[in-house]
Amino acid sequence: MPSISQRGMSMPQSPIRKLVPLSNAAKKRGLKVYHLNIGQPDLPTPQQGLDALKHIDRTTLEYSPSEGLLSLRKKLKDYYDRFNIRVDVDDIIVTAGGSEAVLFAFMACLDPGDEIIVPEPAYANYMAFAISCGAKIVTVPSSIDTGFALPSVEEFEKLITPRTKGILICNPNNPTGYLYTMKEMIQLRDLVKKYDLYLFSDEVYREFCYTGAPYISAFHLPGIEEQVVLIDSVSKRYSECGIRIGAIITKHEKLKESIMKFCMARLSPPLLGQIVAEASIDADKDYMLMNYNEYVERRKFLIDGLNRIPGCYSPIPMGAFYTVAALPVDDAEKFCRWCLEEFEYEGATIFMAPANGFYTTPGAGRNEVRIAYVLKKEDLAAALRVLAAALAAYPGRTN
Amino acid sequence: MPSISQRGMSMPQSPIRKLVPLSNAAKKRGLKVYHLNIGQPDLPTPQQGLDALKHIDRTTLEYSPSEGLLSLRKKLKDYYDRFNIRVDVDDIIVTAGGSEAVLFAFMACLDPGDEIIVPEPAYANYMAFAISCGAKIVTVPSSIDTGFALPSVEEFEKLITPRTKGILICNPNNPTGYLYTMKEMIQLRDLVKKYDLYLFSDEVYREFCYTGAPYISAFHLPGIEEQVVLIDSVSKRYSECGIRIGAIITKHEKLKESIMKFCMARLSPPLLGQIVAEASIDADKDYMLMNYNEYVERRKFLIDGLNRIPGCYSPIPMGAFYTVAALPVDDAEKFCRWCLEEFEYEGATIFMAPANGFYTTPGAGRNEVRIAYVLKKEDLAAALRVLAAALAAYPGRTN
Repeated sequence: MPSISQRGMSMPQSPIRKLVPLSNAAKKRGLKVYHLNIGQPDLPTPQQGLDALKHIDRTTLEYSPSEGLLSLRKKLKDYYDRFNIRVDVDDIIVTAGGSEAVLFAFMACLDPGDEIIVPEPAYANYMAFAISCGAKIVTVPSSIDTGFALPSVEEFEKLITPRTKGILICNPNNPTGYLYTMKEMIQLRDLVKKYDLYLFSDEVYREFCYTGAPYISAFHLPGIEEQVVLIDSVSKRYSECGIRIGAIITKHEKLKESIMKFCMARLSPPLLGQIVAEASIDADKDYMLMNYNEYVERRKFLIDGLNRIPGCYSPIPMGAFYTVAALPVDDAEKFCRWCLEEFEYEGATIFMAPANGFYTTPGAGRNEVRIAYVLKKEDLAAALRVLAAALAAYPGRTN
Repeated sequence: MPSISQRGMSMPQSPIRKLVPLSNAAKKRGLKVYHLNIGQPDLPTPQQGLDALKHIDRTTLEYSPSEGLLSLRKKLKDYYDRFNIRVDVDDIIVTAGGSEAVLFAFMACLDPGDEIIVPEPAYANYMAFAISCGAKIVTVPSSIDTGFALPSVEEFEKLITPRTKGILICNPNNPTGYLYTMKEMIQLRDLVKKYDLYLFSDEVYREFCYTGAPYISAFHLPGIEEQVVLIDSVSKRYSECGIRIGAIITKHEKLKESIMKFCMARLSPPLLGQIVAEASIDADKDYMLMNYNEYVERRKFLIDGLNRIPGCYSPIPMGAFYTVAALPVDDAEKFCRWCLEEFEYEGATIFMAPANGFYTTPGAGRNEVRIAYVLKKEDLAAALRVLAAALAAYPGRTN
């Protein structure tokens, strides 16, 4: 039998995925499983998007242009305008979700052996996409002790080599919920400028910033406009992860051309998703505000709840809908597994994401989990009760 | 400004794409442009698919499983059964179109420097996907003089090196319309078995075989079941290219696992497309037969028409909806460009795909074009009149 690729072998297997069969087995045993592990919002897709779907009157579902429907790209431009992100329609390339945006950005920017620096903990799939390109993710550690603030410029500079091609941030951050400050963003700008690097900025959670301080897009930073590669997606902001619509935004003409070659090779982003996404951008303020308020409340509820459990600690996430919390356990992956395999409380258990999957430094995040607050408050309350009971019963408890 | 990747620079720019701006300019000048250049069927999507779209009653458009909806994969299994392709539901992984299927198959099978042998002319994007993986497409020439029959086993064997990982065929073929015979398929099987290679088989045009001889799937070949990587897509058979639903089918367990890691990294294939695809598989026999008959008629009409034009020659394609024809011109790319830029006949012109984009051998296919018969007969008739007039007027005519 022919062998599989080295690349395939070195692709990381997410520790969350490894737990999915255990979660399914728990459900089969009749347990209610609270999913704190996923970034799939439970809130409804905007009615405008759902209506657009109902009103599609095409008889042939044709390819769309490789760069995406012009009407969608125009709407996106107006959308970015609202955030003071000044880009042209031509700077916007529609992709099959933020995932394809990351993959194509890496493909077009990185050669085998090239490196990008990413603060960890980080979204695990960045690693997977880098491996797909033969590139290397180099992580600079951020810590729960400083609330996952951006590591100092010196920490970044120590890691820069002749193969460093860029810095990648996710802002607001998945998995930590951290929101970079203006001061941090300026530091990143200076670094990127000094070393002529790309700044890959994944800003798919921009609608979810829970602080009065303004959200800083990489495109707000003067002097590096052509170095910014913005990754976007409608998945999270309109609760429509399944339609697979994202975008890459760049003002670097040569890069744009190169990305377009990858886009042409795959012919077209999903047509139906584009129609839904375009209509969703018209979601009224009430919809956005309602969702926002819902997350604000859940955040408060969850973080207060976590910090009330003896031995637990979560910093206050300023954005997105995740937090990374430290638990009083020997090994969070073992604990998460134990919850699914051996524990139940009032007919229920919890599925959390062990944070080790978001770190590349061995041993880092060993006692941490990522918790997504994409459940309604009653369910979060129940999940917190299960967590407290589980920690009280867990044999590997540390304090 | 940071540089783009070598990979990006070496991605081929399709000669068809280069002509798109000329076609747009011709339209702006008020010309009717007959699109013989694309593989976008003009026939309607099955009503079952369109109805399913209208009846989606989900309020949150969630991620689907990374391997695709189970209900779709079950339907696909039954569909393959009809073609005597015996696979399990677990062998089927749903992708964002046939494009993602090719990309992930290459990613999971090929390391940088690995080679796959492809008969040329070949679908240009295979090259693009190979470059994405750092792999190399090695072409074995087939010729219009033999109607694009499979080159002899000796021709293949000459090209096999220690880096050869597989052979790729598209059957029925894009761009030639060639349909491989049982004898040819057995030769491929023996070769693949002897050298322990993958057989990548792109069978997206299987519904369009215009001969009484049975269609031979790579999965019909005994003894290499674990070496076959079947590429599929619903795009062509249900005229729904825009929904981006394809599949990889393999019985190679380790390969399956590896492909799934790439699938998990991109989270999910398009949900809406999956719903439409699943319903489309229920398209009644009348729908399939009507489309089939339509292509049969167009094929006869087009090929007869081409061969009636002095100096033109097209073999009879036995499948798909393309043909590669030889024209009495110095340079088909120049001729295609000239048609769009300088020629008109009764207020119209034609857009054909120069065949050089489907060859890697320099100079090969220089006087050939690919013509897709995805236009209704009246339009094909008009396009043929334009072609005859253009050839009569073209300054670079050779005989």
